[in-house]
Amino acid sequence: CQMCLILCKSLLYEEWASYSVFYKYQPIGLVRKYFGEKIGLYFAWLGLYTQMLIPASVVGVIVFLYGCATVDDNIPSMEICHPKNNITMCPLCDQACSYWKLSTACGTARASHLFDNPATVFFSIFMALWAAMFMEHWKRRQMRLNYEWDLTGFEDEEDHPRAEYEFKVMQKSLKKEHKSQQKVGVTFAIVFGVILYRISTKAALHMSSNPITRNHVRVTVKTTAAIINLVVILILDEVYGAVARWLTVLEVPKTDKSFEERLIFKTFILKFVNAFTPIIYIAFFRGRLVGRPGSYLYVFESYRMEECAHGGCLMELCIQLSITMLGKQLIQNNLFEIGVPKLKKLIRYIRSKHGTFQEEEREKKLQRYEIDHFLEPFAGLTPEYMEMIIQFGFVTLFVASFPLAPLFALLNNIIEIRLDAKKFVAELRRPVAARAKDIGIWYNLLRGVAKVAVIINAFVISFTSDFIPRLVYQYMYSPDGSMYGFVNHTLSYFNVSHFQDGKVPRDPLHLGYPVEICRYKDYREPPWSATPYEISKEFWAVLAVRLAFVIVFQNVVMLMNDIVDWLIPDIPKDISLQIHKEKILMVELFMKEEQGKIHMLDSMTSVGSKENSSSSNNHSPAPRPRAGLHTNNTNSF
Amino acid sequence: CQMCLILCKSLLYEEWASYSVFYKYQPIGLVRKYFGEKIGLYFAWLGLYTQMLIPASVVGVIVFLYGCATVDDNIPSMEICHPKNNITMCPLCDQACSYWKLSTACGTARASHLFDNPATVFFSIFMALWAAMFMEHWKRRQMRLNYEWDLTGFEDEEDHPRAEYEFKVMQKSLKKEHKSQQKVGVTFAIVFGVILYRISTKAALHMSSNPITRNHVRVTVKTTAAIINLVVILILDEVYGAVARWLTVLEVPKTDKSFEERLIFKTFILKFVNAFTPIIYIAFFRGRLVGRPGSYLYVFESYRMEECAHGGCLMELCIQLSITMLGKQLIQNNLFEIGVPKLKKLIRYIRSKHGTFQEEEREKKLQRYEIDHFLEPFAGLTPEYMEMIIQFGFVTLFVASFPLAPLFALLNNIIEIRLDAKKFVAELRRPVAARAKDIGIWYNLLRGVAKVAVIINAFVISFTSDFIPRLVYQYMYSPDGSMYGFVNHTLSYFNVSHFQDGKVPRDPLHLGYPVEICRYKDYREPPWSATPYEISKEFWAVLAVRLAFVIVFQNVVMLMNDIVDWLIPDIPKDISLQIHKEKILMVELFMKEEQGKIHMLDSMTSVGSKENSSSSNNHSPAPRPRAGLHTNNTNSF
Repeated sequence: CQMCLILCKSLLYEEWASYSVFYKYQPIGLVRKYFGEKIGLYFAWLGLYTQMLIPASVVGVIVFLYGCATVDDNIPSMEICHPKNNITMCPLCDQACSYWKLSTACGTARASHLFDNPATVFFSIFMALWAAMFMEHWKRRQMRLNYEWDLTGFEDEEDHPRAEYEFKVMQKSLKKEHKSQQKVGVTFAIVFGVILYRISTKAALHMSSNPITRNHVRVTVKTTAAIINLVVILILDEVYGAVARWLTVLEVPKTDKSFEERLIFKTFILKFVNAFTPIIYIAFFRGRLVGRPGSYLYVFESYRMEECAHGGCLMELCIQLSITMLGKQLIQNNLFEIGVPKLKKLIRYIRSKHGTFQEEEREKKLQRYEIDHFLEPFAGLTPEYMEMIIQFGFVTLFVASFPLAPLFALLNNIIEIRLDAKKFVAELRRPVAARAKDIGIWYNLLRGVAKVAVIINAFVISFTSDFIPRLVYQYMYSPDGSMYGFVNHTLSYFNVSHFQDGKVPRDPLHLGYPVEICRYKDYREPPWSATPYEISKEFWAVLAVRLAFVIVFQNVVMLMNDIVDWLIPDIPKDISLQIHKEKILMVELFMKEEQGKIHMLDSMTSVGSKENSSSSNNHSPAPRPRAGLHTNNTNSF
Repeated sequence: CQMCLILCKSLLYEEWASYSVFYKYQPIGLVRKYFGEKIGLYFAWLGLYTQMLIPASVVGVIVFLYGCATVDDNIPSMEICHPKNNITMCPLCDQACSYWKLSTACGTARASHLFDNPATVFFSIFMALWAAMFMEHWKRRQMRLNYEWDLTGFEDEEDHPRAEYEFKVMQKSLKKEHKSQQKVGVTFAIVFGVILYRISTKAALHMSSNPITRNHVRVTVKTTAAIINLVVILILDEVYGAVARWLTVLEVPKTDKSFEERLIFKTFILKFVNAFTPIIYIAFFRGRLVGRPGSYLYVFESYRMEECAHGGCLMELCIQLSITMLGKQLIQNNLFEIGVPKLKKLIRYIRSKHGTFQEEEREKKLQRYEIDHFLEPFAGLTPEYMEMIIQFGFVTLFVASFPLAPLFALLNNIIEIRLDAKKFVAELRRPVAARAKDIGIWYNLLRGVAKVAVIINAFVISFTSDFIPRLVYQYMYSPDGSMYGFVNHTLSYFNVSHFQDGKVPRDPLHLGYPVEICRYKDYREPPWSATPYEISKEFWAVLAVRLAFVIVFQNVVMLMNDIVDWLIPDIPKDISLQIHKEKILMVELFMKEEQGKIHMLDSMTSVGSKENSSSSNNHSPAPRPRAGLHTNNTNSF
């Protein structure tokens, strides 16, 4: 009825699409009644995700506070900051830069401790388990909703081939297989192209052509670079969306459902690669292939690959992560999602005003559906899910280097739910209700992200942070088992006279005294050894421990995930009991009813003996009609 | 009918329980009709497993033949065997042993090439994928059988609590949770105890208290040790079966099904650990903790840990594997399975003969069921599955070191199927037919074994075989990129004057000349370096590459497994189409029938208006009775 719908809408507006109820559970049942199961499931999923983010943010904040609290007790940064520690470092670029004192990197070293302490190791294990728990809880919630919404017997209806597919099949039925392989090839080529392009942009941005290398300027440069990167990500995101659609159209999938799934999968891969390439570059490639003083690695013969600031690349990774994450959420999600529809509505409204006076008159007595016509049409849930899954990536993939990510995500999502709710209730035309049992391919993508997260976190902890070198120093090299001397241990020696021609600093007396030996961060033999500047034994030892850590971390976390998976049953106990009981009741009811009918028919000595025998068939065990007779199927007639 | 059963049995006897039909598919439909779904599924699973073993054995044999063909081109073994290569090795035991020539290890080095060549790396990747394929194929086969056997709607009936459980619950309802935790603890303690006990036995067996170390004796010693080990495994297997049962009884599970599952799980863990501990000891711990000449590691102050023969421990691992596998199959499975029931039957028969003459008379006119009473009662499928899953472990876990394992398994299983068939048809009483949709916990155990196999194979290739050291030598240290000089590179130098007192060989002139420098297999600094006998840079480099290989191997194989899992749909296309069609047909039939009834009732202007309205309910979409109405449930009345 028209009245019910209007009532339902106003109720949703009050109880759901309002920021003032942000602390309440969503009225999912009502949402499902008004918008259908598919949209209901999306909001149920978003609600559970946001709810699960609460414990993650709490633990993340505690880990961050632990970092803040222990920053003064951290021996390596104390050693760097100590003014008496007169370590002279090698110049960071050719000619323009000069020698510098390690103590000027004090600030960065102290800041990087916030994200590089033993608590982050614990936190990344915690977050891997959190992701596994989230999956399991979603399975259970989905099961419960299926039961409550009466979908237990519902199965997707048969997909009809798309018109485009049938047309194409008619056109060329033979070349198909060969073509589809070609298309997969094209997709992979494009993904690979994206990666290469992003890495080269990144590298070009970071090549140290700037002669200013004073420390406080450094952070600014890094931040601007990160912002430029963000803008590039935002623009390319739109481009890749179009590319994915074009690729899928080329592929000519058979049904609408398979078209949608393929499109989602391609868009996801491209957007994911786009969002995470610069971050992966910083985490794993920056400062790895720089060479050593006297024999730096050059790109295009004149640009030197830039090193990370002292204290590892973790700090830069953190800046990049926070700016990308916050920026994407603020600009792409909120600005685009609120701003653009509002703008479009305004344009529509203005346009209609330009009509005659009569029309304006009529507008005042507009019917509900006429007003609704000014709203945006519903464009599907894909962008909403996509946004959330990329966010899930930020929360799980690099959590080892940015423990505040869950908090940011939580704050965003609390707004996001109500924002989406407002959009669905007020800004968009009411979509045609669609049935769905689950969130489909999105669940598989979530699982994939969670799996990749385990291995990426293992690599971030062991290769990007200084966790393993510290451990190795403490247990293998430290003379007294303490961390004192760690900084000295990680720095190699370089004899200034070994600089190549044209690479010597123009201002060698920058520090006020002549330099003979400068230090650089690497594990290499000193100039006075038999094999000067060769990779040292310490390098291999640290590398072996790093790799061993990756193996142990990955397998322990995978084992724990399996245990979580095994301990939490997929169907909640009460639901499975209830289903069982109802099934028994149903069968009893059916039996009684049938018996009643037969009894009646028998007592009447009827003519229709045929129907009678066929209906009593259901009691004899002999015949075996096959498919289960779900009541839902009966409902749909 | 009695007649059908006898006919069925004789047909099974001819077409199934006979060695002469070993090349034919099993008549699974007939087996299911006679023995029920549960046993039918076991034989279907065994059949598919055996069938899948055929390609695995073929590839395994090819890999083995490749090893045989390339043994003469293998540069490291050529270097060892070359008589001009006068490398003097350090003694393998204190005092009693003397220096020895490396060329005496020629045979072992050549033999170990058979199992340690690049083809085995390929083969272990192949077998990991094979296991994933096997899982997927079984899922599909199970689905097909479910459809053909009309089990699609069947669900396990409600489990009633066991009497023991209810009794216990009455006795003590409060302490339960605490107790169950205690029990889990006991289980883990026992598993750990098994591991420790087995390793220490193994170590004690291998401690080189024997003064004979000549090379041809070595293999004999190893073989006898492996046989002793096998006997220990066979005895302990029975003990652990009893222990698992005792533990599960202590736990007091709630239902019969959960009792069975817990028992299976415990038995599996204990038997698996029992079967694989000595093998894991040889693969990963033998020869690792031996120390170095001049500073060997001693256990109990006088026993030195034994080293592996030259060419790695792979050869010994191979001997141990083949003897355990063949021995277990021959003795435990075939001897026990055929011999013991025959013996028991004989005893029963003899006992009954001791009765009076009258009884003997009567026996001649015995009824079928009376004869059957002399047969063994059916003891469940657990031992059959257990045997096969341990075999699956041998086929997948250490396949990198023993490529012939699938062939041995295949030969065993061809006999095993018919042997089991004979046993079920002729030796055992016909079991009560039990319904089952799947093979239950066994599938999960199989998946677990397949997962563990990936990581174990990665470690066998990188740590037990010489694959990685060879690779590292070729690409990092070799002067001309060839393998020449590899043997020399892997041997460290020891100055004989650094032997501790009492450890010097009693016969130092055994080789006919005085020895100053002897060699041993390890990566350590030479005596003339600044840090003599310290672990060298090469050691850490090789270790790092080994660990990197494990990471790459594990993740590549897991990714490929996921792709296989994703590419092969769980339900065969034709079956899912068929189910869909039948469901539509069924609903149409149901509708017609119902309409016919209503029509009839209406036309008769009957009195029973109540029943009428309730039956016509099924057509209106309003009421929502919940549970699916499976026809199978109707059948069971």
